Amino acid sequence: MIIDLRSDTVTRPSKGMLEAMMQAKVGDDVFDEDPTVKVLEQRLANMFGKPRALFFPSGSMANQTALKLHTQPGEQVICDKTAHIYNYEAGGASFNSGISCKLLDGKRGMFTAKQVEEAINPDAFYYAKTTLVEVENTANRGGGSCWDFEEIKKIRKVCDKHELGFHLDGARIWNALVEKNESPKQYGELFDTISVCLSKGLGCPIGSVLIGDEEIMKDAVRIRKVFGGNMRQVGYLAASGLYALDNNINRLTEDHKRAKEIGAVLINQSYIKSVEPIETNIIIFELNDTVNEDQFISSLDKEGIKLIGMGSGKLRIVTHLDYTDTMHSKFLSILKELTF
Amino acid sequence: MIIDLRSDTVTRPSKGMLEAMMQAKVGDDVFDEDPTVKVLEQRLANMFGKPRALFFPSGSMANQTALKLHTQPGEQVICDKTAHIYNYEAGGASFNSGISCKLLDGKRGMFTAKQVEEAINPDAFYYAKTTLVEVENTANRGGGSCWDFEEIKKIRKVCDKHELGFHLDGARIWNALVEKNESPKQYGELFDTISVCLSKGLGCPIGSVLIGDEEIMKDAVRIRKVFGGNMRQVGYLAASGLYALDNNINRLTEDHKRAKEIGAVLINQSYIKSVEPIETNIIIFELNDTVNEDQFISSLDKEGIKLIGMGSGKLRIVTHLDYTDTMHSKFLSILKELTF
Amino acid sequence: MIIDLRSDTVTRPSKGMLEAMMQAKVGDDVFDEDPTVKVLEQRLANMFGKPRALFFPSGSMANQTALKLHTQPGEQVICDKTAHIYNYEAGGASFNSGISCKLLDGKRGMFTAKQVEEAINPDAFYYAKTTLVEVENTANRGGGSCWDFEEIKKIRKVCDKHELGFHLDGARIWNALVEKNESPKQYGELFDTISVCLSKGLGCPIGSVLIGDEEIMKDAVRIRKVFGGNMRQVGYLAASGLYALDNNINRLTEDHKRAKEIGAVLINQSYIKSVEPIETNIIIFELNDTVNEDQFISSLDKEGIKLIGMGSGKLRIVTHLDYTDTMHSKFLSILKELTF
Amino acid sequence: MIIDLRSDTVTRPSKGMLEAMMQAKVGDDVFDEDPTVKVLEQRLANMFGKPRALFFPSGSMANQTALKLHTQPGEQVICDKTAHIYNYEAGGASFNSGISCKLLDGKRGMFTAKQVEEAINPDAFYYAKTTLVEVENTANRGGGSCWDFEEIKKIRKVCDKHELGFHLDGARIWNALVEKNESPKQYGELFDTISVCLSKGLGCPIGSVLIGDEEIMKDAVRIRKVFGGNMRQVGYLAASGLYALDNNINRLTEDHKRAKEIGAVLINQSYIKSVEPIETNIIIFELNDTVNEDQFISSLDKEGIKLIGMGSGKLRIVTHLDYTDTMHSKFLSILKELTF
Repeated sequence: MIIDLRSDTVTRPSKGMLEAMMQAKVGDDVFDEDPTVKVLEQRLANMFGKPRALFFPSGSMANQTALKLHTQPGEQVICDKTAHIYNYEAGGASFNSGISCKLLDGKRGMFTAKQVEEAINPDAFYYAKTTLVEVENTANRGGGSCWDFEEIKKIRKVCDKHELGFHLDGARIWNALVEKNESPKQYGELFDTISVCLSKGLGCPIGSVLIGDEEIMKDAVRIRKVFGGNMRQVGYLAASGLYALDNNINRLTEDHKRAKEIGAVLINQSYIKSVEPIETNIIIFELNDTVNEDQFISSLDKEGIKLIGMGSGKLRIVTHLDYTDTMHSKFLSILKELTF
Repeated sequence: MIIDLRSDTVTRPSKGMLEAMMQAKVGDDVFDEDPTVKVLEQRLANMFGKPRALFFPSGSMANQTALKLHTQPGEQVICDKTAHIYNYEAGGASFNSGISCKLLDGKRGMFTAKQVEEAINPDAFYYAKTTLVEVENTANRGGGSCWDFEEIKKIRKVCDKHELGFHLDGARIWNALVEKNESPKQYGELFDTISVCLSKGLGCPIGSVLIGDEEIMKDAVRIRKVFGGNMRQVGYLAASGLYALDNNINRLTEDHKRAKEIGAVLINQSYIKSVEPIETNIIIFELNDTVNEDQFISSLDKEGIKLIGMGSGKLRIVTHLDYTDTMHSKFLSILKELTF
Repeated sequence: MIIDLRSDTVTRPSKGMLEAMMQAKVGDDVFDEDPTVKVLEQRLANMFGKPRALFFPSGSMANQTALKLHTQPGEQVICDKTAHIYNYEAGGASFNSGISCKLLDGKRGMFTAKQVEEAINPDAFYYAKTTLVEVENTANRGGGSCWDFEEIKKIRKVCDKHELGFHLDGARIWNALVEKNESPKQYGELFDTISVCLSKGLGCPIGSVLIGDEEIMKDAVRIRKVFGGNMRQVGYLAASGLYALDNNINRLTEDHKRAKEIGAVLINQSYIKSVEPIETNIIIFELNDTVNEDQFISSLDKEGIKLIGMGSGKLRIVTHLDYTDTMHSKFLSILKELTF
Repeated sequence: MIIDLRSDTVTRPSKGMLEAMMQAKVGDDVFDEDPTVKVLEQRLANMFGKPRALFFPSGSMANQTALKLHTQPGEQVICDKTAHIYNYEAGGASFNSGISCKLLDGKRGMFTAKQVEEAINPDAFYYAKTTLVEVENTANRGGGSCWDFEEIKKIRKVCDKHELGFHLDGARIWNALVEKNESPKQYGELFDTISVCLSKGLGCPIGSVLIGDEEIMKDAVRIRKVFGGNMRQVGYLAASGLYALDNNINRLTEDHKRAKEIGAVLINQSYIKSVEPIETNIIIFELNDTVNEDQFISSLDKEGIKLIGMGSGKLRIVTHLDYTDTMHSKFLSILKELTF
């Protein structure tokens, strides 16, 4: 039995999801004729209270398209220093949109409205023009941390005051919604654009959706085409998304519960230095200085357990749809038995 | 009964293909762990006699990635004036790679080695530097025309002489291979990179593959990530590709046969001015000056038949996997009965 | 005595111009405090009846800035196939602005409003969006040809109808104005932006100015800074421009007169196949098939006369401020005496 | 008497420099025929022990060209968080080259080899590829701080180990050379490319020069052309550079002496909170919390003294060629008399 805790992206569709996929009605989406993707897009738009939604083959492309829709070359986006768009999208913000990032020194991936306001460049021709603020919720590198919604409201006010766009990287927004008992519409009211992922927590094989206002989204199909994100009979993928929205959102509480249980075990082990606060399905922890990271990963690997290092001596565990009760019991036992 | 002849992209997977998809073994391809996509990539690499192949969500992205792999900003690619990369990829060559196109005045989408050599910019700092030649086979706007392989060989020599890259947009290369009884390896020997489409003639719902040499492909995954073309459990799509390679290549001769039969009927109708030579599955024709294009399309639409205008008074019909014998008989009858 | 007829850019400042430069009041233009450049900019803005003008170190940068101000990445500009912006600015349109050119098959560098309207891409997401039309007057590769002002008016109407920007590359607009007895304000009324060159016919060492409307010019300083075109005590260069506006415009008629005289001699020589119509200060001609181009250039070079080939068997002569009566007599004599 | 201490860019050419300019031999540098710019370029290349040097209209363009020569779109350059290329070139790194900056938390604009090594991205396709390190000496925002040459040597070793390019923004390298008694050749040995400014401390009206190795510089003229930095009779500007190299380098010690004297006075004033270490010609200081920055600037302005705020409550004074003994005495007196 392999227990893969490297990421929530490793899930495979359940039988039910696969059946939904194979029964999907499809058409050529480049001709705007795939019925299932239309249903999915409309449903997500409605959920977030926005007029428009568009399917993408990846969350990176949904984010990169949003960055382009909000900005012109030479401009600057304010985001956390750990932001996915700066760190893990292969330099795409500069490559695709010709923009730079102003990185904020947030706490666990989350910053304040005050920090945003101070980071806006003065209005002079030799500065990059600040035009966008980006928030990631939950924050991956922050350890699945959930933003304080009141702080997001304050950032929205700063955006309004300075005419900045406001984008949410909602790759794991479902986890935040479930954990904090928030609604998608709350987020739709504050952000201009929101990318949501159908893969990670929701367990689909492929797909992200960008949701936004009419005006900002009017060129979204064009930008998706420029990147080559237009696909044909995309309904098979959309069907998995619809299935996930029906079946896989509320169960995220289980992933969170297990993550906290893992954390509770970890913190008591002699080989552990510290465990970051666990809010959702991500556990970030540090080993004692005496324990070698590679050796730790290797020891677990021999037991069939996979996790990944994040650099700087930190390791990450992510719970998900394919992490079962049986796996959970076994993993907790192993953690307790490990010695270094 | 709808007879959709707008494009060969409108096909839906057959029952067999769908079953193959449903049974696919999958993994997270971002972690390089999807077994089915690996089999597909390796199989296509072998077919064309190249070391590397990479799956893409669209032919546009495969082409755009190739353009980027071959060029640096400010450089110039030589292609036909009707090339897909110039006309139908949303200005992506300039947007993504910062390059311009030197358009050749080819015949039915095909140009000569002599034209290529004359189009290379002189080596001076104020000219865009010519670094790539692109060929599209079959040529879509050329009416599915098939290149003379000997001319391609000559172009390769020009590329060698002037150190130019050589890319094949093989969106419909399968049609050319079948029609001209050529082999993929012949093409692999001449081109540095080749994009092939699994959708169009082969009938898959989604997917293109870029095939190339080790050196040129070494940054292909990175560029795909920049565009956001990285996907997770992509094996479902790859499985349809494997099925298509087994089942749907040789049958393209049927599409070609029907296309020629349609052409033979068309040319004898009073409302037709001319029909371009038909080599594969595309028929391009002009109406008599007395016949209104919109009215013609609308008349056919009432009979359940869809086709599209190409601008400049030309119309296009494309035969494909989902165009059956029954449809063919009915369509030929209707063509003969139409009056204007 | 060297008679340099390669270009009107080879002129050196006259004694008067040099004195004007030396006496210029200057300041730090990056702080917006150079008084002389302000006077020059204001004077040119007034001449063309526009609110804004900005100094640039080169005509290429003035044009490239205009292209950027008018467009966003992925868009398309309509221009002649011989346009300087496509052919001689090192691929800058694609490098700097990420745009492509739709080249028109004009006559002697000049096209019609009908050609423009036909070249506008349809409004579909897979086409590059057409957003700009560019005219070059006089047209360099057209042989210093002067546009029919009525045709420009018609093109303006097409731009208005389709919401396209309209830029004039006026590198040699002074020659057109003098030759056709037109006024700068006529051009200011039709174009959104106009680049004018102080070097070529006007004899300054360095400098071009971009003139335009308030809205389109509001980011011009920022774009100039991005390219690095901001300079410090630029008043020395601006002073030469002011001197040239006072002294060197009307005398362009002399350059034109001499050019026509050269043409009249050329056409009667046995070694000449043809001479293109001569309207201003550029003479483009072809040698007889029996005369080798390199040998021709070399023969003249031995006499101290320099001219350049333009490719495709064409040669170019340009008259200018430093081409004197003495040189003219000598050159005409030599042309008559040459034998091949 | 205006005492302008905002920047060393505000200097105007001396009588001697102006005479040198007006007597310059010039030619068309686009034809590579300006003799004076060739002498200047060769002289600077020799000074720094490099084979190639190229004149630019600004330091921003010299830096932006270097960034482009070293990188491809999507890559990343490591520099200090206060670097000119990140903060004051209008977002040009991303606009022109499509690259991002990894900002180091240096001290007074200077970082360590260890920081560089830790900042290099891992070799994975989803990270921006690190390919360049940039150093600014003296560091403007660091208060004219001079780098420890031994640390630069260590950074060079890191660059070698990881195959990174190494660029020096030497806008004020002359100040460092004079202050630390270092030689240009020392820098030429360590860096691949070096931009030096002829304006700031050296007192020229316009001009910077990029100096580098043969291979890296081979496309420099092309990139300069793309940006529009090609100019015609550029010898007038080059002549001022030659004059400055002869006359204005050693005298920078006077600027440094005066700067330190200003600092010594400032630190004793009741309205001053702190003065940063003064190494060259830049003084950065903070006012007491009770003193309003705008009011302070305004009080000095009434006395004819200009300086600028740098944001975050810091102010900057820069001494230079046009700041005379008389001005110095007056300024020191005023500083002592000010009360708030």
